[in-house]
Amino acid sequence: MKIVIVGASGTMGRHLASAFEKDHEVIKADRHSDDVKVDITSPESIENMYKNIGSFDALICTAGPTYVGPWKNLTDKTFRNGVEGKMMGQINLVLIGQHYINAKGSFTLITGALTHDPQKNFANASAANAAVEGFVRAAAIELENGIRINAVSPTVIEKSPQYFPYFPGEIPVTMQQLEYGFSKSVFGANTGQIIKPY
Amino acid sequence: MKIVIVGASGTMGRHLASAFEKDHEVIKADRHSDDVKVDITSPESIENMYKNIGSFDALICTAGPTYVGPWKNLTDKTFRNGVEGKMMGQINLVLIGQHYINAKGSFTLITGALTHDPQKNFANASAANAAVEGFVRAAAIELENGIRINAVSPTVIEKSPQYFPYFPGEIPVTMQQLEYGFSKSVFGANTGQIIKPY
Repeated sequence: MKIVIVGASGTMGRHLASAFEKDHEVIKADRHSDDVKVDITSPESIENMYKNIGSFDALICTAGPTYVGPWKNLTDKTFRNGVEGKMMGQINLVLIGQHYINAKGSFTLITGALTHDPQKNFANASAANAAVEGFVRAAAIELENGIRINAVSPTVIEKSPQYFPYFPGEIPVTMQQLEYGFSKSVFGANTGQIIKPY
Repeated sequence: MKIVIVGASGTMGRHLASAFEKDHEVIKADRHSDDVKVDITSPESIENMYKNIGSFDALICTAGPTYVGPWKNLTDKTFRNGVEGKMMGQINLVLIGQHYINAKGSFTLITGALTHDPQKNFANASAANAAVEGFVRAAAIELENGIRINAVSPTVIEKSPQYFPYFPGEIPVTMQQLEYGFSKSVFGANTGQIIKPY
């Protein structure tokens, strides 16, 4: 299987690339990647990425910039970080990528528990996550040629302890659990699902 | 109570204005209103609306433009209808309005069953609704001075039969049920809730 990982140099992306490249061809894409460069906030950059890669079987996205910070700093302007990044970035990966992906291929996006369990400083991520989840359910009934779409929604990640203080009482998801979540989407048969790997 | 209704000339807005003005001061705002004009896709227009109105006790929004149409026409560009309209329009009504609303006031936004029950042609609304619901839950733990926020999430509205063919098997919400939903948010004490008035 030819698997594209967007966000491949991040904590989650590195783990998934390492896990899946044992048995599959993994294309690592990222804003700073030496493999394939992509800026998901730009539809043109996404289109160029797909043109460079050619056809593929699965797209995984672990990239999701949002604004993190005090509520008093949340304005139309700061809110755009998550709108252009985690939300429209991922939605455009699907809207554009559907024209390049092989039949029976899959898209797996990243959301997070903030959709339903908000935390202070993260309202932008709650909205972006929720938007992606709403889109995933809707896209699942529209995509043709057996193309599937799911989202993986972890809590805080065990390898990102710098975030633990912002998520009091949230049980961290292990890298192994995260890998299970993405495996379920990429190698399973479900579509329109929000996979909680815990 | 001084209640601002954004979208006051629409099917839902007219019903709510008529119901609530029996016992309250209702300010009708809309893109084409003779009362107070507002274009929710413009933060400047929203700011001007609040400056004109002055302090108030409750804001209701029933305005939520989105792109409705075939999946093949869904692109970054058409998706912006819902992003700027139903999503950021309503989010900006809160981010800006929090500086004008009275202590213990409330915001009540409009979403819809498409968040969890997608229908063909409405992926943009599914994403925008979900984003607003994620934001509502997050804003509820951030807003100060006892200010509350909820969303009302109806199915298709009985007075909009032109939409029935797009919602097969969806039991229409009556205008009375819709009014109950908004009443629960405005006159009740809940916050961070997605109210399903059916």
